Amino acid sequence: MVSSDEFREAMSRLGTSVNLVTTDGPAGRRGLTVSAVCSVTDLPPTVLVCINRANRSHDVVRDNGVLCVNILAGRHEALSKAFASSSTSSEERFARGEWDTLVTGAPALIDAPTALDCGIAGRLEVGTHTIFICEVERIRMREAENLVYFNRAFHHLNPA
Amino acid sequence: MVSSDEFREAMSRLGTSVNLVTTDGPAGRRGLTVSAVCSVTDLPPTVLVCINRANRSHDVVRDNGVLCVNILAGRHEALSKAFASSSTSSEERFARGEWDTLVTGAPALIDAPTALDCGIAGRLEVGTHTIFICEVERIRMREAENLVYFNRAFHHLNPA
Repeated sequence: MVSSDEFREAMSRLGTSVNLVTTDGPAGRRGLTVSAVCSVTDLPPTVLVCINRANRSHDVVRDNGVLCVNILAGRHEALSKAFASSSTSSEERFARGEWDTLVTGAPALIDAPTALDCGIAGRLEVGTHTIFICEVERIRMREAENLVYFNRAFHHLNPA
Repeated sequence: MVSSDEFREAMSRLGTSVNLVTTDGPAGRRGLTVSAVCSVTDLPPTVLVCINRANRSHDVVRDNGVLCVNILAGRHEALSKAFASSSTSSEERFARGEWDTLVTGAPALIDAPTALDCGIAGRLEVGTHTIFICEVERIRMREAENLVYFNRAFHHLNPA
């Protein structure tokens, strides 16, 4: 009944934070831009991340079993585009930011407003995507700023 | 390692759309404000909704097996507060808006920018919450406007 085009149009009307999801470990270092990040529960502290199984980073995230959700600020618009572009290699993507690690070894963007370092506690495949259930093991918070995507455009949110 | 307070503070830095999730059916009519709504896949068109199992609407949503995600606009700030307040009865909540139904029978807010009428296709319990996997059966789109919650404050997004 509902076409892919109609669904995508409706989803463009659901404002979301723009985030970089990164991973590192035996399967390698990768990162991608993800808007489908959602709070689940604070007991235990858990978020979820939805990733298309056709994305070249999907299996690497799954196999490493760890990821970091780097919530972006307005100044990171170009960075978010680099991590979303299929023509930008993994090396080129990471060269555009400064990184360290918290506890899992996944790359944490040093100037991200908030970084959530997570272990993957479960996953559920739904259609083309996997929902990763991620327990938050360490949080780094620097400032209140957010890059939001809505109606196919970027918006910058600052502290109220 | 990560406390509930620290996690909640971090989640306040993840900007989200503000939405009313409604249901109706054999278990009754209910509705609540939910920020934890996330796109999953367009094949089949699917979103997820996370609801605390302690919320009085949780079991009603589960038992009816249908829900409508009403994405809100800036003008709906007071409505979103009514649907989030434990001191506002179900009747008082619905009296504050105008409603009709699409296909599932769940209440659709007539002037919501976007309404996603869904059947519940699966659920996963994680900690205190249930993740409802929702197949979108009908979409109604009226305008591009969004009420966003970030840093414990409302923000109004308009077409870019």
